[in-house]
Amino acid sequence: MVFITRKFHFSAAHRMYKPELSDEENFKLYGKCSNPNWHGHNYVLEVTVAGEPEPGIGYVMDLKKLRDIVDEVIIEKVDHKNLNIDVEFMKGIIPTTENIVVQFWNQLENKINNYNRKLYSMKLSETGNNSVEYRGKNYE
Amino acid sequence: MVFITRKFHFSAAHRMYKPELSDEENFKLYGKCSNPNWHGHNYVLEVTVAGEPEPGIGYVMDLKKLRDIVDEVIIEKVDHKNLNIDVEFMKGIIPTTENIVVQFWNQLENKINNYNRKLYSMKLSETGNNSVEYRGKNYE
Amino acid sequence: MVFITRKFHFSAAHRMYKPELSDEENFKLYGKCSNPNWHGHNYVLEVTVAGEPEPGIGYVMDLKKLRDIVDEVIIEKVDHKNLNIDVEFMKGIIPTTENIVVQFWNQLENKINNYNRKLYSMKLSETGNNSVEYRGKNYE
Amino acid sequence: MVFITRKFHFSAAHRMYKPELSDEENFKLYGKCSNPNWHGHNYVLEVTVAGEPEPGIGYVMDLKKLRDIVDEVIIEKVDHKNLNIDVEFMKGIIPTTENIVVQFWNQLENKINNYNRKLYSMKLSETGNNSVEYRGKNYE
Amino acid sequence: MVFITRKFHFSAAHRMYKPELSDEENFKLYGKCSNPNWHGHNYVLEVTVAGEPEPGIGYVMDLKKLRDIVDEVIIEKVDHKNLNIDVEFMKGIIPTTENIVVQFWNQLENKINNYNRKLYSMKLSETGNNSVEYRGKNYE
Amino acid sequence: MVFITRKFHFSAAHRMYKPELSDEENFKLYGKCSNPNWHGHNYVLEVTVAGEPEPGIGYVMDLKKLRDIVDEVIIEKVDHKNLNIDVEFMKGIIPTTENIVVQFWNQLENKINNYNRKLYSMKLSETGNNSVEYRGKNYE
Repeated sequence: MVFITRKFHFSAAHRMYKPELSDEENFKLYGKCSNPNWHGHNYVLEVTVAGEPEPGIGYVMDLKKLRDIVDEVIIEKVDHKNLNIDVEFMKGIIPTTENIVVQFWNQLENKINNYNRKLYSMKLSETGNNSVEYRGKNYE
Repeated sequence: MVFITRKFHFSAAHRMYKPELSDEENFKLYGKCSNPNWHGHNYVLEVTVAGEPEPGIGYVMDLKKLRDIVDEVIIEKVDHKNLNIDVEFMKGIIPTTENIVVQFWNQLENKINNYNRKLYSMKLSETGNNSVEYRGKNYE
Repeated sequence: MVFITRKFHFSAAHRMYKPELSDEENFKLYGKCSNPNWHGHNYVLEVTVAGEPEPGIGYVMDLKKLRDIVDEVIIEKVDHKNLNIDVEFMKGIIPTTENIVVQFWNQLENKINNYNRKLYSMKLSETGNNSVEYRGKNYE
Repeated sequence: MVFITRKFHFSAAHRMYKPELSDEENFKLYGKCSNPNWHGHNYVLEVTVAGEPEPGIGYVMDLKKLRDIVDEVIIEKVDHKNLNIDVEFMKGIIPTTENIVVQFWNQLENKINNYNRKLYSMKLSETGNNSVEYRGKNYE
Repeated sequence: MVFITRKFHFSAAHRMYKPELSDEENFKLYGKCSNPNWHGHNYVLEVTVAGEPEPGIGYVMDLKKLRDIVDEVIIEKVDHKNLNIDVEFMKGIIPTTENIVVQFWNQLENKINNYNRKLYSMKLSETGNNSVEYRGKNYE
Repeated sequence: MVFITRKFHFSAAHRMYKPELSDEENFKLYGKCSNPNWHGHNYVLEVTVAGEPEPGIGYVMDLKKLRDIVDEVIIEKVDHKNLNIDVEFMKGIIPTTENIVVQFWNQLENKINNYNRKLYSMKLSETGNNSVEYRGKNYE
């Protein structure tokens, strides 16, 4: 088993808030991340796929193919977008890094897995100082 | 003459657009940076001050003092904010990195300069792949 | 299960040596890390907590709360300090990166763990070229 | 159990191709990585060893010793070399990152493992955007 | 005057050698960089353009336009190539970082300069530990 | 004119204080940097030399030669040392980053300058967030 990882970058706006609360209550809960006029980040996404290198080729998965899939399924839908408003699969979900990476996993998993490889981990960083990793339900 | 540089970080939302144009026209001009629902970045700001180390102390300027000034004059006003809406000194100015760093300079310059030091350069990065540097009108 | 990681920075002095040995013997054992007048590093500490995002909030743990706990329990006690002399919980322990991170774990674990989350990993880097990770006794 | 990691750097040329195919067929399979006149990378190798800190010393393994072993067994054989031509243990093997890291593991494993430590992971990056990790056959 | 910088990445093979010398003599002159079977690097190129932000737009130069020009004039010609063999404008020139960046400047300068902006600096790194900067003949 | 830069790393302990002041007075002046039992950093030093690439060779200066000179004149004297106690050329000088880099310049300048090259800049970082650059008396 070999683990291959590719890094992706996107920039997006978001806001942490519960719509049923006032701005003051949201500020209490989420601090400056609840700013009503949004803020944003340069997100870094690391996608790890586990599998056997294909005999005679030597790749677990062609990284260009991995890039094309992640670009289509995730990056094009979130880059230079508002995560609360513009992204279909985030509708109704508070865009914490935890919640975003779980939704990304749900979008991507069945596009990657096949007979000799599977999605192993997705790691999302909002800033250089923090990150969230999800390894799917198999882990639990 | 010695040059001291300190790095600052902030996260903000913005949108490139001219209010007199339609969304389609703005897209033509600014591409995906004109997304009507905003997007955002982790900005990195590097502030360079030039001067002589103070005799008997050895600092051009105490970095804690520099940090406090930049935090008060710039960072607290832009961090987790919308650069088009929330920031007084950006009102009516298209928030390109070029325009932002010039406004930052105008806010900061007279808070730094004194008899033995002066603001020398401000460099602002929107992403790890690009940056804009301004050295004030003295340079020209 | 989701894994959240936050990075911390501190700068400290230390010396590798066994007090019962001479400077020459310590040099044989620890090389230039045994310099009698100390040396120091910018340490980077990564703390990973595993848990379920809290329903209706979306955080495994508020990162500001994690920061406050780690700052109080660890960073304030070691930043700009001498790890051999100034730090209560390092008394009598040779400050190798291995030993430091295990002591950090012992200080932090019961401040983090509760019904829905637990300390999962602590990773400490002395320089950009090396690091030590500890995942507690549960791992073994 | 504690995990220590040390980072190594080397620069090498390589080419992805199957000798039985034409240049056109290799381009179809490997894209620009099949350029007949070679291309190259700054590789980053991270070696992780798991074990107990040695009592009275505090090291899982002296990092200078780890460096000397990896330098001798791997780095000196690949640094500023052509991975298809110059490296004995890569003969007949397509130098994908997956295949390289597995060969590195085979060279290194029995030089590291002893009664109280074992090679745990090797991670090889061709560029800052991708990496491949191998943890040996024990993992499977 | 504002300075905008964009970073580019490419991977290439090369060899330092003078064709009139033997391998032994080239090794004496260029060390392991003269390996007859080539070696390679991930190069990082930073291009800086100086100018006035265009009134009503706010850009010194649209970074997408800068990217397209540099991609066409430089990156596509050197990425995944052999700098001694595959690159027209490097023919007969020893591919030291110094010589490469001067040739890059010669290719790019007249594609960038116009009435309100000019190419100001090009900086090329072979590894994270070294770089070469060229600012053209105007500097001297 | 071409500018070549090489990066160096060293780790050292130091303390900001004036010997004629009490610990309390030093704390007022230098904050936690005055801790009586020292603290330390991983310093990064960037040395820039300006000159013409040597015809027929292509180097402004062989980087291995630059490395050997800087290692001998600076790095070996400060790495894993105490900057207040162990370093001859720092005796009696408060080891602020400003003062250190000026002393480094004084040690290095006449070892680099010759008919076709000169020391252009030295930049010293105490942490990733700050740096000090000195370009010698020629600049003023």
